Amino acid sequence: MNTTSLPEPAVLDRIRVVLSHPSHPGNIGAAARAMKTMGLSRLVLVNPRTFPDAQADAMAAGATDLLVQAEVVMSLPEALSGTVLAVAMTARRRELATPALWARDAAAEVVAMASSGDVAIVFGNETSGLSNEELGQCRRWAMIPVNVDFSSLNLAAAVQVMGYELRLAALDPGRPPAISGAGELASHDEVEGLITHIERAAIASEFLDPASPKRLILRLRRMFSRAAPEKEEVNILRGLFAALEKGISGPIKGKANPENKT
Amino acid sequence: MNTTSLPEPAVLDRIRVVLSHPSHPGNIGAAARAMKTMGLSRLVLVNPRTFPDAQADAMAAGATDLLVQAEVVMSLPEALSGTVLAVAMTARRRELATPALWARDAAAEVVAMASSGDVAIVFGNETSGLSNEELGQCRRWAMIPVNVDFSSLNLAAAVQVMGYELRLAALDPGRPPAISGAGELASHDEVEGLITHIERAAIASEFLDPASPKRLILRLRRMFSRAAPEKEEVNILRGLFAALEKGISGPIKGKANPENKT
Repeated sequence: MNTTSLPEPAVLDRIRVVLSHPSHPGNIGAAARAMKTMGLSRLVLVNPRTFPDAQADAMAAGATDLLVQAEVVMSLPEALSGTVLAVAMTARRRELATPALWARDAAAEVVAMASSGDVAIVFGNETSGLSNEELGQCRRWAMIPVNVDFSSLNLAAAVQVMGYELRLAALDPGRPPAISGAGELASHDEVEGLITHIERAAIASEFLDPASPKRLILRLRRMFSRAAPEKEEVNILRGLFAALEKGISGPIKGKANPENKT
Repeated sequence: MNTTSLPEPAVLDRIRVVLSHPSHPGNIGAAARAMKTMGLSRLVLVNPRTFPDAQADAMAAGATDLLVQAEVVMSLPEALSGTVLAVAMTARRRELATPALWARDAAAEVVAMASSGDVAIVFGNETSGLSNEELGQCRRWAMIPVNVDFSSLNLAAAVQVMGYELRLAALDPGRPPAISGAGELASHDEVEGLITHIERAAIASEFLDPASPKRLILRLRRMFSRAAPEKEEVNILRGLFAALEKGISGPIKGKANPENKT
Protein backbone atom coordinates (compact mmCIF):
# COMPACT_ATOMS: atom_id res chain seq x y z
CA MET A 1 0.00 0.00 0.00
CA ASN A 2 1.79 3.12 -1.21
CA THR A 3 -0.63 5.97 -0.75
CA THR A 4 1.39 9.11 -0.34
CA SER A 5 1.57 9.90 -4.04
CA LEU A 6 -2.00 8.91 -4.87
CA PRO A 7 -4.77 11.48 -5.30
CA GLU A 8 -7.33 11.63 -2.52
CA PRO A 9 -9.94 8.91 -3.07
CA ALA A 10 -13.14 10.49 -4.46
CA VAL A 11 -15.31 8.24 -2.32
CA LEU A 12 -14.36 10.25 0.77
CA ASP A 13 -16.32 13.20 -0.68
CA ARG A 14 -19.49 11.14 -0.39
CA ILE A 15 -19.12 10.70 3.35
CA ARG A 16 -20.84 13.16 5.69
CA VAL A 17 -19.59 13.42 9.26
CA VAL A 18 -22.63 14.35 11.33
CA LEU A 19 -22.14 15.73 14.85
CA SER A 20 -25.44 15.72 16.66
CA HIS A 21 -25.93 18.34 19.38
CA PRO A 22 -22.24 18.97 20.11
CA SER A 23 -21.79 20.99 23.33
CA HIS A 24 -18.24 22.29 23.00
CA PRO A 25 -17.19 24.36 19.98
CA GLY A 26 -13.57 23.30 20.58
CA ASN A 27 -14.59 19.73 19.85
CA ILE A 28 -16.19 20.81 16.56
CA GLY A 29 -12.91 22.42 15.51
CA ALA A 30 -10.81 19.44 16.62
CA ALA A 31 -13.18 17.11 14.76
CA ALA A 32 -12.75 19.22 11.60
CA ARG A 33 -8.97 18.95 11.93
CA ALA A 34 -9.21 15.18 12.44
CA MET A 35 -11.46 14.88 9.39
CA LYS A 36 -9.18 16.87 7.13
CA THR A 37 -6.08 14.84 8.04
CA MET A 38 -7.98 11.79 6.83
CA GLY A 39 -9.27 13.42 3.63
CA LEU A 40 -12.86 13.91 4.81
CA SER A 41 -14.45 17.29 4.07
CA ARG A 42 -18.21 17.23 4.65
CA LEU A 43 -19.17 18.28 8.15
CA VAL A 44 -22.84 18.49 9.17
CA LEU A 45 -23.81 19.90 12.55
CA VAL A 46 -27.18 19.11 14.10
CA ASN A 47 -28.26 21.88 16.46
CA PRO A 48 -24.81 22.76 17.85
CA ARG A 49 -24.89 24.68 21.13
CA THR A 50 -22.39 27.31 19.94
CA PHE A 51 -21.40 27.66 16.29
CA PRO A 52 -19.61 29.40 14.66
CA ASP A 53 -17.18 30.12 17.47
CA ALA A 54 -13.61 31.36 17.86
CA GLN A 55 -12.65 28.27 19.86
CA ALA A 56 -13.80 26.03 17.04
CA ASP A 57 -11.64 28.01 14.62
CA ALA A 58 -8.64 27.79 16.95
CA MET A 59 -8.91 24.03 17.40
CA ALA A 60 -9.40 23.45 13.66
CA ALA A 61 -5.78 24.58 13.11
CA GLY A 62 -5.80 24.86 9.32
CA ALA A 63 -9.06 23.02 8.75
CA THR A 64 -11.26 26.10 9.10
CA ASP A 65 -12.39 25.61 5.48
CA LEU A 66 -14.39 22.62 6.73
CA LEU A 67 -16.04 24.84 9.35
CA VAL A 68 -16.88 27.50 6.76
CA GLN A 69 -18.45 24.87 4.50
CA ALA A 70 -20.17 23.03 7.37
CA GLU A 71 -23.89 22.54 7.03
CA VAL A 72 -25.93 23.42 10.13
CA VAL A 73 -29.34 21.78 10.46
CA MET A 74 -31.89 21.49 13.24
CA SER A 75 -32.61 17.75 13.23
CA LEU A 76 -30.97 14.45 12.38
CA PRO A 77 -33.47 13.62 9.59
CA GLU A 78 -32.34 16.82 7.82
CA ALA A 79 -28.71 15.79 8.22
CA LEU A 80 -29.42 12.36 6.75
CA SER A 81 -31.58 13.63 3.90
CA GLY A 82 -30.53 12.02 0.62
CA THR A 83 -28.19 9.42 2.16
CA VAL A 84 -28.33 5.73 1.30
CA LEU A 85 -26.69 4.63 4.55
CA ALA A 86 -26.32 6.14 7.99
CA VAL A 87 -24.03 4.64 10.63
CA ALA A 88 -24.44 5.66 14.27
CA MET A 89 -21.35 5.61 16.46
CA THR A 90 -22.21 4.30 19.90
CA ALA A 91 -20.13 3.64 22.99
CA ARG A 92 -22.72 1.76 25.04
CA ARG A 93 -24.78 -1.36 24.68
CA ARG A 94 -28.42 -0.40 24.22
CA GLU A 95 -31.86 -1.65 24.79
CA LEU A 96 -33.26 -2.94 21.50
CA ALA A 97 -29.75 -3.27 20.19
CA THR A 98 -29.05 -5.39 17.20
CA PRO A 99 -25.35 -6.30 17.20
CA ALA A 100 -23.18 -3.28 16.47
CA LEU A 101 -20.35 -3.47 13.95
CA TRP A 102 -16.76 -2.78 14.87
CA ALA A 103 -15.49 0.47 13.39
CA ARG A 104 -13.32 -1.33 10.86
CA ASP A 105 -16.15 -3.42 9.45
CA ALA A 106 -18.48 -0.43 9.45
CA ALA A 107 -15.93 1.59 7.49
CA ALA A 108 -15.70 -1.13 4.85
CA GLU A 109 -19.47 -1.12 4.46
CA VAL A 110 -19.67 2.67 4.35
CA VAL A 111 -17.06 2.90 1.62
CA ALA A 112 -18.73 0.13 -0.39
CA MET A 113 -22.11 1.86 -0.13
CA ALA A 114 -20.69 5.27 -1.02
CA SER A 115 -20.55 4.18 -4.65
CA SER A 116 -24.37 4.14 -4.55
CA GLY A 117 -24.78 7.58 -2.97
CA ASP A 118 -24.12 9.74 0.04
CA VAL A 119 -23.44 8.06 3.36
CA ALA A 120 -23.30 9.46 6.88
CA ILE A 121 -21.40 8.68 10.08
CA VAL A 122 -23.27 10.07 13.07
CA PHE A 123 -21.63 11.05 16.37
CA GLY A 124 -23.69 11.99 19.44
CA ASN A 125 -23.35 14.59 22.15
CA GLU A 126 -20.15 14.49 24.24
CA THR A 127 -21.99 13.51 27.43
CA SER A 128 -25.22 11.83 26.46
CA GLY A 129 -24.33 10.27 23.11
CA LEU A 130 -27.12 9.62 20.62
CA SER A 131 -30.74 9.28 21.72
CA ASN A 132 -32.60 6.05 21.02
CA GLU A 133 -34.66 7.99 18.50
CA GLU A 134 -31.50 9.11 16.70
CA LEU A 135 -30.08 5.59 16.77
CA GLY A 136 -33.31 4.32 15.27
CA GLN A 137 -32.76 6.53 12.23
CA CYS A 138 -29.46 4.86 11.40
CA ARG A 139 -29.26 1.53 9.63
CA ARG A 140 -26.04 0.46 11.28
CA TRP A 141 -24.47 1.02 14.66
CA ALA A 142 -20.73 0.99 15.05
CA MET A 143 -18.43 0.81 18.03
CA ILE A 144 -14.76 1.62 18.51
CA PRO A 145 -13.17 -1.09 20.66
CA VAL A 146 -12.09 0.60 23.89
CA ASN A 147 -10.78 -0.31 27.32
CA VAL A 148 -13.96 -1.20 29.22
CA ASP A 149 -12.50 0.33 32.38
CA PHE A 150 -11.86 3.66 30.62
CA SER A 151 -13.98 4.20 27.57
CA SER A 152 -13.78 8.00 27.69
CA LEU A 153 -12.95 8.61 24.06
CA ASN A 154 -12.98 12.32 23.21
CA LEU A 155 -15.40 13.29 20.41
CA ALA A 156 -12.59 14.43 18.08
CA ALA A 157 -10.62 11.27 18.94
CA ALA A 158 -13.57 9.13 17.89
CA VAL A 159 -13.82 11.12 14.64
CA GLN A 160 -10.06 10.61 14.17
CA VAL A 161 -10.23 6.84 14.58
CA MET A 162 -13.32 6.42 12.42
CA GLY A 163 -11.87 8.80 9.80
CA TYR A 164 -8.68 6.74 9.79
CA GLU A 165 -10.64 3.54 9.17
CA LEU A 166 -12.66 5.21 6.41
CA ARG A 167 -9.48 6.45 4.77
CA LEU A 168 -7.88 3.00 4.84
CA ALA A 169 -11.06 1.40 3.52
CA ALA A 170 -11.19 3.99 0.72
CA LEU A 171 -7.54 3.42 -0.20
CA ASP A 172 -7.80 -0.35 -0.06
CA PRO A 173 -7.43 -1.56 -3.62
CA GLY A 174 -8.63 -5.04 -2.72
CA ARG A 175 -12.05 -3.99 -1.54
CA PRO A 176 -14.78 -5.56 -3.67
CA PRO A 177 -17.17 -3.13 -5.37
CA ALA A 178 -20.44 -2.17 -3.70
CA ILE A 179 -23.10 -4.83 -3.50
CA SER A 180 -25.15 -4.11 -6.57
CA GLY A 181 -28.70 -5.36 -6.44
CA ALA A 182 -31.12 -5.29 -9.32
CA GLY A 183 -32.65 -1.95 -8.31
CA GLU A 184 -31.68 1.43 -6.98
CA LEU A 185 -31.58 1.73 -3.21
CA ALA A 186 -34.19 3.86 -1.51
CA SER A 187 -32.90 7.08 0.01
CA HIS A 188 -33.10 7.81 3.71
CA ASP A 189 -36.04 10.15 3.06
CA GLU A 190 -37.92 7.49 1.17
CA VAL A 191 -37.48 4.96 3.97
CA GLU A 192 -38.49 7.61 6.53
CA GLY A 193 -41.54 8.41 4.43
CA LEU A 194 -42.46 4.76 4.55
CA ILE A 195 -42.02 4.60 8.36
CA THR A 196 -44.18 7.70 8.81
CA HIS A 197 -46.75 6.20 6.56
CA ILE A 198 -46.74 2.94 8.52
CA GLU A 199 -46.99 4.81 11.82
CA ARG A 200 -49.97 6.80 10.57
CA ALA A 201 -51.60 3.64 9.32
CA ALA A 202 -50.91 1.82 12.57
CA ILE A 203 -52.50 4.60 14.63
CA ALA A 204 -55.42 4.91 12.29
CA SER A 205 -55.98 1.19 12.62
CA GLU A 206 -55.89 1.47 16.43
CA PHE A 207 -53.14 -1.11 16.37
CA LEU A 208 -50.92 1.55 17.89
CA ASP A 209 -51.66 3.82 20.84
CA PRO A 210 -50.84 7.31 19.50
CA ALA A 211 -49.88 8.32 23.07
CA SER A 212 -46.92 5.90 23.25
CA PRO A 213 -45.95 4.68 19.81
CA LYS A 214 -42.20 5.13 20.24
CA ARG A 215 -40.96 1.63 20.98
CA LEU A 216 -42.87 -0.11 18.29
CA ILE A 217 -41.91 2.39 15.63
CA LEU A 218 -38.29 2.12 16.71
CA ARG A 219 -38.41 -1.61 16.11
CA LEU A 220 -40.01 -1.19 12.71
CA ARG A 221 -37.56 1.47 11.72
CA ARG A 222 -34.64 -0.76 12.62
CA MET A 223 -36.08 -3.62 10.64
CA PHE A 224 -36.49 -1.49 7.53
CA SER A 225 -33.10 0.05 8.07
CA ARG A 226 -31.45 -3.37 8.17
CA ALA A 227 -33.36 -4.43 5.10
CA ALA A 228 -31.88 -1.59 2.98
CA PRO A 229 -34.93 -1.55 0.74
CA GLU A 230 -34.88 -0.53 -2.90
CA LYS A 231 -36.93 2.38 -4.21
CA GLU A 232 -39.38 0.08 -5.89
CA GLU A 233 -39.94 -1.92 -2.71
CA VAL A 234 -40.66 1.25 -0.78
CA ASN A 235 -43.13 2.29 -3.43
CA ILE A 236 -44.88 -1.06 -3.31
CA LEU A 237 -45.16 -0.91 0.49
CA ARG A 238 -46.45 2.65 0.42
CA GLY A 239 -49.00 1.62 -2.14
CA LEU A 240 -50.02 -1.24 0.10
CA PHE A 241 -50.37 0.96 3.20
CA ALA A 242 -52.29 3.57 1.26
CA ALA A 243 -54.66 0.84 0.22
CA LEU A 244 -55.00 -0.41 3.80
CA GLU A 245 -55.68 3.09 5.11
CA LYS A 246 -58.53 3.41 2.68
CA GLY A 247 -59.97 0.16 4.05
CA ILE A 248 -59.87 1.50 7.64
CA SER A 249 -62.16 4.36 6.79
CA GLY A 250 -64.58 1.76 5.33
CA PRO A 251 -67.54 0.08 7.07
CA ILE A 252 -65.90 -2.32 9.56
CA LYS A 253 -63.26 -0.09 11.18
CA GLY A 254 -60.33 -1.81 12.82
CA LYS A 255 -61.21 -5.30 11.67
CA ALA A 256 -60.36 -7.38 8.65
CA ASN A 257 -62.34 -6.66 5.55
CA PRO A 258 -64.82 -9.55 5.19
CA GLU A 259 -64.18 -9.57 1.44
CA ASN A 260 -60.74 -10.99 2.17
CA LYS A 261 -62.17 -13.99 4.03
CA THR A 262 -62.86 -16.17 1.03
CA MET B 1 -14.60 -10.15 17.39
CA ASN B 2 -16.41 -9.67 20.69
CA THR B 3 -14.03 -7.84 22.95
CA THR B 4 -16.11 -5.94 25.45
CA SER B 5 -16.26 -8.77 27.97
CA LEU B 6 -12.66 -9.91 27.55
CA PRO B 7 -9.93 -8.90 30.00
CA GLU B 8 -7.43 -6.36 28.77
CA PRO B 9 -4.74 -8.13 26.72
CA ALA B 10 -1.58 -8.49 28.84
CA VAL B 11 0.63 -7.72 25.86
CA LEU B 12 -0.39 -4.05 26.02
CA ASP B 13 1.50 -3.79 29.33
CA ARG B 14 4.73 -4.51 27.44
CA ILE B 15 4.33 -1.51 25.18
CA ARG B 16 5.95 1.79 26.12
CA VAL B 17 4.66 4.98 24.55
CA VAL B 18 7.64 7.31 24.34
CA LEU B 19 7.08 11.03 23.75
CA SER B 20 10.37 12.65 22.87
CA HIS B 21 10.76 16.35 23.76
CA PRO B 22 7.06 17.21 23.89
CA SER B 23 6.52 20.99 23.98
CA HIS B 24 2.94 21.28 25.23
CA PRO B 25 1.88 19.70 28.54
CA GLY B 26 -1.72 19.62 27.29
CA ASN B 27 -0.61 17.19 24.58
CA ILE B 28 0.99 14.93 27.19
CA GLY B 29 -2.29 14.77 29.07
CA ALA B 30 -4.35 14.18 25.92
CA ALA B 31 -1.90 11.45 24.87
CA ALA B 32 -2.34 9.77 28.27
CA ARG B 33 -6.11 9.84 27.83
CA ALA B 34 -5.80 8.40 24.32
CA MET B 35 -3.49 5.65 25.64
CA LYS B 36 -5.80 4.65 28.45
CA THR B 37 -8.87 4.36 26.21
CA MET B 38 -6.88 1.81 24.21
CA GLY B 39 -5.59 -0.10 27.24
CA LEU B 40 -2.01 1.25 27.13
CA SER B 41 -0.51 2.34 30.44
CA ARG B 42 3.25 2.89 30.14
CA LEU B 43 4.15 6.47 29.29
CA VAL B 44 7.79 7.53 29.00
CA LEU B 45 8.70 11.20 28.53
CA VAL B 46 12.07 12.20 27.11
CA ASN B 47 13.04 15.66 28.30
CA PRO B 48 9.56 17.23 28.32
CA ARG B 49 9.55 21.03 28.33
CA THR B 50 7.00 21.27 31.15
CA PHE B 51 6.05 18.31 33.29
CA PRO B 52 4.25 17.73 35.59
CA ASP B 53 1.76 20.44 34.77
CA ALA B 54 -1.84 21.33 35.61
CA GLN B 55 -2.76 21.47 31.90
CA ALA B 56 -1.51 17.92 31.42
CA ASP B 57 -3.70 16.79 34.32
CA ALA B 58 -6.72 18.63 32.91
CA MET B 59 -6.36 17.11 29.44
CA ALA B 60 -5.81 13.61 30.85
CA ALA B 61 -9.45 13.64 32.06
CA GLY B 62 -9.40 10.51 34.20
CA ALA B 63 -6.08 9.15 32.95
CA THR B 64 -3.97 11.06 35.47
CA ASP B 65 -2.77 7.72 36.88
CA LEU B 66 -0.70 7.33 33.70
CA LEU B 67 0.86 10.74 34.31
CA VAL B 68 1.67 9.87 37.93
CA GLN B 69 3.33 6.63 36.82
CA ALA B 70 5.06 8.22 33.81
CA GLU B 71 8.80 7.76 33.59
CA VAL B 72 10.77 10.92 32.80
CA VAL B 73 14.22 10.46 31.26
CA MET B 74 16.74 12.77 29.64
CA SER B 75 17.54 10.90 26.42
CA LEU B 76 16.00 8.44 24.00
CA PRO B 77 18.55 5.68 24.73
CA GLU B 78 17.37 5.72 28.36
CA ALA B 79 13.76 5.48 27.23
CA LEU B 80 14.57 2.49 25.02
CA SER B 81 16.75 0.70 27.54
CA GLY B 82 15.78 -2.95 27.79
CA THR B 83 13.47 -2.99 24.77
CA VAL B 84 13.70 -5.59 22.01
CA LEU B 85 12.02 -3.37 19.40
CA ALA B 86 11.57 0.36 18.98
CA VAL B 87 9.29 1.83 16.33
CA ALA B 88 9.61 5.50 15.38
CA MET B 89 6.50 7.31 14.19
CA THR B 90 7.34 9.63 11.34
CA ALA B 91 5.24 11.92 9.19
CA ARG B 92 7.83 12.80 6.56
CA ARG B 93 9.96 10.98 4.08
CA ARG B 94 13.58 11.10 5.16
CA GLU B 95 17.02 11.03 3.82
CA LEU B 96 18.49 7.55 4.31
CA ALA B 97 14.98 6.21 4.72
CA THR B 98 14.37 2.54 4.38
CA PRO B 99 10.71 2.01 3.56
CA ALA B 100 8.51 2.87 6.53
CA LEU B 101 5.73 0.52 7.60
CA TRP B 102 2.13 1.60 7.70
CA ALA B 103 0.79 1.94 11.23
CA ARG B 104 -1.32 -1.21 10.92
CA ASP B 105 1.59 -3.41 9.87
CA ALA B 106 3.84 -1.86 12.47
CA ALA B 107 1.27 -2.61 15.18
CA ALA B 108 1.14 -6.25 14.17
CA GLU B 109 4.93 -6.51 14.41
CA VAL B 110 5.04 -4.69 17.75
CA VAL B 111 2.46 -6.99 19.28
CA ALA B 112 4.22 -10.07 17.94
CA MET B 113 7.56 -8.90 19.34
CA ALA B 114 6.07 -7.99 22.71
CA SER B 115 6.02 -11.66 23.60
CA SER B 116 9.85 -11.51 23.53
CA GLY B 117 10.15 -8.43 25.74
CA ASP B 118 9.40 -4.75 26.08
CA VAL B 119 8.70 -2.74 22.94
CA ALA B 120 8.49 1.01 22.39
CA ILE B 121 6.56 3.34 20.06
CA VAL B 122 8.36 6.66 19.77
CA PHE B 123 6.66 9.97 18.93
CA GLY B 124 8.65 13.13 18.23
CA ASN B 125 8.23 16.77 19.10
CA GLU B 126 5.00 18.46 17.91
CA THR B 127 6.82 20.76 15.49
CA SER B 128 10.11 19.14 14.56
CA GLY B 129 9.28 15.44 14.89
CA LEU B 130 12.14 13.04 15.63
CA SER B 131 15.74 13.89 14.80
CA ASN B 132 17.68 11.70 12.40
CA GLU B 133 19.73 10.54 15.36
CA GLU B 134 16.60 9.48 17.21
CA LEU B 135 15.24 7.74 14.11
CA GLY B 136 18.49 5.87 13.81
CA GLN B 137 17.96 4.35 17.23
CA CYS B 138 14.71 2.73 16.18
CA ARG B 139 14.58 -0.49 14.21
CA ARG B 140 11.36 0.33 12.41
CA TRP B 141 9.74 3.49 11.17
CA ALA B 142 5.99 3.73 10.91
CA MET B 143 3.64 6.18 9.23
CA ILE B 144 -0.03 6.92 9.63
CA PRO B 145 -1.57 7.40 6.19
CA VAL B 146 -2.74 11.01 5.99
CA ASN B 147 -4.08 13.48 3.48
CA VAL B 148 -0.90 14.75 1.80
CA ASP B 149 -2.44 18.21 1.50
CA PHE B 150 -3.13 18.37 5.25
CA SER B 151 -0.99 16.05 7.29
CA SER B 152 -1.28 18.07 10.49
CA LEU B 153 -2.05 15.21 12.84
CA ASN B 154 -2.09 16.34 16.47
CA LEU B 155 0.33 14.44 18.75
CA ALA B 156 -2.47 12.96 20.87
CA ALA B 157 -4.38 12.08 17.68
CA ALA B 158 -1.37 10.14 16.41
CA VAL B 159 -1.13 8.34 19.77
CA GLN B 160 -4.86 7.61 19.53
CA VAL B 161 -4.62 6.07 16.05
CA MET B 162 -1.50 4.04 16.83
CA GLY B 163 -2.96 2.95 20.17
CA TYR B 164 -6.11 1.84 18.38
CA GLU B 165 -4.07 -0.26 15.95
CA LEU B 166 -2.05 -1.77 18.80
CA ARG B 167 -5.23 -2.63 20.66
CA LEU B 168 -6.76 -4.32 17.62
CA ALA B 169 -3.54 -6.20 16.94
CA ALA B 170 -3.43 -7.33 20.58
CA LEU B 171 -7.06 -8.48 20.52
CA ASP B 172 -6.72 -10.24 17.17
CA PRO B 173 -7.01 -13.94 17.94
CA GLY B 174 -5.81 -14.90 14.48
CA ARG B 175 -2.42 -13.28 14.79
CA PRO B 176 0.37 -15.85 14.56
CA PRO B 177 2.70 -16.03 17.55
CA ALA B 178 5.94 -14.07 17.60
CA ILE B 179 8.64 -15.19 15.24
CA SER B 180 10.73 -17.45 17.45
CA GLY B 181 14.29 -17.88 16.31
CA ALA B 182 16.79 -20.26 17.84
CA GLY B 183 18.24 -17.67 20.20
CA GLU B 184 17.20 -14.83 22.44
CA LEU B 185 17.04 -11.42 20.76
CA ALA B 186 19.62 -8.83 21.72
CA SER B 187 18.24 -5.93 23.72
CA HIS B 188 18.35 -2.37 22.46
CA ASP B 189 21.27 -1.65 24.80
CA GLU B 190 23.23 -4.58 23.47
CA VAL B 191 22.78 -3.48 19.87
CA GLU B 192 23.69 0.09 20.81
CA GLY B 193 26.77 -1.24 22.57
CA LEU B 194 27.73 -3.00 19.38
CA ILE B 195 27.23 0.17 17.29
CA THR B 196 29.34 2.20 19.71
CA HIS B 197 31.98 -0.46 19.57
CA ILE B 198 31.96 -0.45 15.78
CA GLU B 199 32.16 3.35 15.68
CA ARG B 200 35.15 3.35 18.03
CA ALA B 201 36.83 0.69 15.95
CA ALA B 202 36.07 2.54 12.72
CA ILE B 203 37.60 5.75 14.04
CA ALA B 204 40.58 3.94 15.49
CA SER B 205 41.18 2.31 12.13
CA GLU B 206 41.01 5.72 10.41
CA PHE B 207 38.27 4.31 8.23
CA LEU B 208 36.02 6.95 9.73
CA ASP B 209 36.65 10.66 10.15
CA PRO B 210 35.86 11.28 13.82
CA ALA B 211 34.79 14.86 12.88
CA SER B 212 31.84 13.72 10.73
CA PRO B 213 30.96 10.10 11.42
CA LYS B 214 27.20 10.63 11.62
CA ARG B 215 25.95 9.44 8.24
CA LEU B 216 27.93 6.26 8.15
CA ILE B 217 27.03 5.26 11.66
CA LEU B 218 23.39 6.00 10.91
CA ARG B 219 23.55 3.57 8.00
CA LEU B 220 25.20 0.89 10.11
CA ARG B 221 22.76 1.36 12.91
CA ARG B 222 19.86 0.94 10.54
CA MET B 223 21.35 -2.19 9.08
CA PHE B 224 21.78 -3.76 12.50
CA SER B 225 18.38 -2.57 13.54
CA ARG B 226 16.76 -4.27 10.55
CA ALA B 227 18.73 -7.41 11.22
CA ALA B 228 17.26 -7.79 14.74
CA PRO B 229 20.36 -9.65 15.92
CA GLU B 230 20.34 -12.25 18.66
CA LYS B 231 22.42 -11.85 21.83
CA GLU B 232 24.90 -14.42 20.69
CA GLU B 233 25.42 -12.70 17.35
CA VAL B 234 26.07 -9.39 19.08
CA ASN B 235 28.59 -11.10 21.34
CA ILE B 236 30.35 -12.66 18.39
CA LEU B 237 30.57 -9.32 16.57
CA ARG B 238 31.84 -7.56 19.65
CA GLY B 239 34.47 -10.22 20.10
CA LEU B 240 35.45 -9.76 16.47
CA PHE B 241 35.72 -5.96 16.78
CA ALA B 242 37.64 -6.25 20.02
CA ALA B 243 40.06 -8.51 18.22
CA LEU B 244 40.34 -6.09 15.29
CA GLU B 245 40.99 -3.15 17.62
CA LYS B 246 43.86 -5.05 19.14
CA GLY B 247 45.28 -5.52 15.64
CA ILE B 248 45.15 -1.76 14.95
CA SER B 249 47.49 -1.03 17.87
CA GLY B 250 49.87 -3.61 16.40
CA PRO B 251 52.80 -3.02 14.00
CA ILE B 252 51.06 -2.20 10.67
CA LYS B 253 48.39 0.30 11.80
CA GLY B 254 45.34 0.67 9.59
CA LYS B 255 46.21 -2.20 7.26
CA ALA B 256 45.42 -5.88 7.24
CA ASN B 257 47.51 -8.02 9.54
CA PRO B 258 50.05 -9.84 7.33
CA GLU B 259 49.54 -12.98 9.40
CA ASN B 260 46.04 -13.23 7.90
CA LYS B 261 47.35 -13.34 4.32
CA THR B 262 48.12 -17.03 4.14
